Amino acid sequence: MKEYIQANRDRFLDELFSLLRIPSVSSLGQHRPDMQRCAERLAELLREAGADSAEIFPTAGHPVVFAQKILGPQYGTVLVYGHYDVQPADPLELWHSDPFEPQIRDGAIYARGANDDKGQLFMHLKAFEYLVRTGSLRHNVKFIFEGEEEIGSPSLAAWAEQHKDMLKADIILVSDTTMISEQVPSINCGMRGLAYLEIKVTGPDKDLHSGHYGGAVANPINILCDMISSLIDKDGHITVKGFYDDVVELSAEDREKLARAPFDLGEYKKFLDIGDVKGEKGYTTLERTGIRPCLDVNGIWGGYTGEGAKTVIPSEAHAKISMRLVPDQDSGKIAGLFEKHIMSIAPDCVKVEVTRHHGGNGFLIPISSHAYQAASRAMEEVYGVEPVPSRGGGSIPILADLQKILGIDPLLMGFGLERDTIHSPDESYLLSQFFKGIEAIALFYRYY
Amino acid sequence: MKEYIQANRDRFLDELFSLLRIPSVSSLGQHRPDMQRCAERLAELLREAGADSAEIFPTAGHPVVFAQKILGPQYGTVLVYGHYDVQPADPLELWHSDPFEPQIRDGAIYARGANDDKGQLFMHLKAFEYLVRTGSLRHNVKFIFEGEEEIGSPSLAAWAEQHKDMLKADIILVSDTTMISEQVPSINCGMRGLAYLEIKVTGPDKDLHSGHYGGAVANPINILCDMISSLIDKDGHITVKGFYDDVVELSAEDREKLARAPFDLGEYKKFLDIGDVKGEKGYTTLERTGIRPCLDVNGIWGGYTGEGAKTVIPSEAHAKISMRLVPDQDSGKIAGLFEKHIMSIAPDCVKVEVTRHHGGNGFLIPISSHAYQAASRAMEEVYGVEPVPSRGGGSIPILADLQKILGIDPLLMGFGLERDTIHSPDESYLLSQFFKGIEAIALFYRYY
Repeated sequence: MKEYIQANRDRFLDELFSLLRIPSVSSLGQHRPDMQRCAERLAELLREAGADSAEIFPTAGHPVVFAQKILGPQYGTVLVYGHYDVQPADPLELWHSDPFEPQIRDGAIYARGANDDKGQLFMHLKAFEYLVRTGSLRHNVKFIFEGEEEIGSPSLAAWAEQHKDMLKADIILVSDTTMISEQVPSINCGMRGLAYLEIKVTGPDKDLHSGHYGGAVANPINILCDMISSLIDKDGHITVKGFYDDVVELSAEDREKLARAPFDLGEYKKFLDIGDVKGEKGYTTLERTGIRPCLDVNGIWGGYTGEGAKTVIPSEAHAKISMRLVPDQDSGKIAGLFEKHIMSIAPDCVKVEVTRHHGGNGFLIPISSHAYQAASRAMEEVYGVEPVPSRGGGSIPILADLQKILGIDPLLMGFGLERDTIHSPDESYLLSQFFKGIEAIALFYRYY
Repeated sequence: MKEYIQANRDRFLDELFSLLRIPSVSSLGQHRPDMQRCAERLAELLREAGADSAEIFPTAGHPVVFAQKILGPQYGTVLVYGHYDVQPADPLELWHSDPFEPQIRDGAIYARGANDDKGQLFMHLKAFEYLVRTGSLRHNVKFIFEGEEEIGSPSLAAWAEQHKDMLKADIILVSDTTMISEQVPSINCGMRGLAYLEIKVTGPDKDLHSGHYGGAVANPINILCDMISSLIDKDGHITVKGFYDDVVELSAEDREKLARAPFDLGEYKKFLDIGDVKGEKGYTTLERTGIRPCLDVNGIWGGYTGEGAKTVIPSEAHAKISMRLVPDQDSGKIAGLFEKHIMSIAPDCVKVEVTRHHGGNGFLIPISSHAYQAASRAMEEVYGVEPVPSRGGGSIPILADLQKILGIDPLLMGFGLERDTIHSPDESYLLSQFFKGIEAIALFYRYY
């Protein structure tokens, strides 16, 4: 298999780059034509890789690409999930090369989507191509690639419900996560859910001169800061009433198992260039991202943000706030509690509005399953060490929905690394991980 | 005089509009050529109005325009101060007409600078022109118009120190403030000082995926909100250590005098469209802006602020924060206390930097003075009622400096109104106030 990859290496990269060049940013309306273009290119690549058919299904949002190769009912069926949409590329000035013109530097591909998720989903196409062309495919394979993962997959659940029969499979195979390091491969056995909301605080109906009104009129930025600050107490607990009601507490034994994952706090702080970590009292760093919920302000803005100084009390202040959730917290319920809490702490001197962005539930994957064991064996063969089960802090909300709708478990074979800085400037993907990933995925089919 | 104004009305407006069309935004480097152009146009208008000479003095920053007409040493001398620079016009989308293409709507001029301060300083040119052309001038008149008031006048104090002799006068006459209402004229007898700083909080050295790191790594926006929230306590007191040390407490008698200024809280709230006011416990709204210091966030930004949602822990968060000061608070001392306080509350998990923008001290003007009395008589003649002495909340930091350098008091005859929304979109200036102001200023010379 290594020879096949080596012989086709340049073509693999050319094909991936053709996807990376399309700025398929799902959250920005202006990129709608790019979404369609990206879906079409993906369908083309699926057919070229060996799919019997590849279709583009329109949805209320961005299209879903579905492709399959059916050998017969006597074979097991793998459903590959991925997403071809990407996060916005800003702040653009912090990129060292054009986010939509992929560049190889120091053994890595630099581009928006290089890892998340174009780079990772593309490994599945190439592992599939290898199996087809070498006559070693022994499974039916189905692919769903959606264009709305980064905005919370608003259309896919309904689409999957509608096409339940077509999607019948034994496992959902996904590469959209990280592993601990190149030396310590890991398989994600749980992910957090997400609730994402936006707060708008309106004070006076116009911007005011801060000299004339300062001290007498509530400043919406100050009020917003007060409200945000009150959401987390000094022990790192979230103060939203009812927030922890459904949080599953892990047993001491389970916590001990997770603690076996290698983790070096010094290296972690050095990688991030931070003086100290910060989080919920009573939990380790890995627990804080793996098994505990959290709340972050993802964006804040209000008033004068240009060069120099402007003495203004702005009319409005805004913040985007998201919460990562753990089993059994329900995303919709948490969003409701958050709205209620914010309105309950909003003072009379301002008007406060809360709106919801996307959300989704977290989930757990059984380590004992046949699929997990096959993935473990495949990765061990490629990396030379047995992968560690880990709990990822991120969210792929749609997977919990697909699990429920289709009645099958997801399996997360992710090949990203922390250094890839997905969602950030200079997103990258190591070439070595890209090629090892193709190999490990092909081996998964052998052992599954 | 009314006839003179009526006969020349259109020319007055044409001339003013020629100033308003120049986007002399002092805080933005790109407008440097506009600053020079505006200074030149102003010098031209001063000569046309009757000045013996009008010169442009370069400074380290934007130029100072100085003009004078000297009748002889036997006459008293009035030094008119004003500024030709303006605040940035953004947010542009909230203007109903081009900020730099003045428009008359509903009896008011709409443009950036219509009031602050091009509209107000121009009244002085036209009152002066009237006195010169009708042979009724009985004072030496000097004009200083600077181009850096909106950025804290960094060059003018040194320039004034250098040209002390040239600037000798008996009074500094200024129109750069508001009066209570058209029905209730008022004269400002005190202004607040200003300290303006900027905070930058840096967490991780790159933007992070909030799923992978959320809960374990300090989010600079959350930290910034915590710090800002802690700056004002629940009673509206500023918590910066030593902040109130030099605040002059007014006597019960003085507070009672100030309370005589007509003020309708219901109207005030209605004008601003707010449900309630908010400020320091134990003080009225007028006291909160007139005799008490305050702290406001003038701008805040960090993370993703675009359309939709992005799950990011940003590397940085920023805020612009200003404090209005009262006698005898020293702007430099307060800026130092603020820096020290912020560094003392900055947690180890982030890096915090504080930088200073402009600042200046507040001042008081004696009501019993001859100049105040002359202004009062002039305004009473134009408005039909005796003006009320008031304490403005705004700051013209340079006036405290000029007072100290030249040894003469400022007199604030301001004709702006709250409705003019200076520093905001749709800044305007009522034509009636513009023409009444010219008349009142000309009468001031008669009674001074």
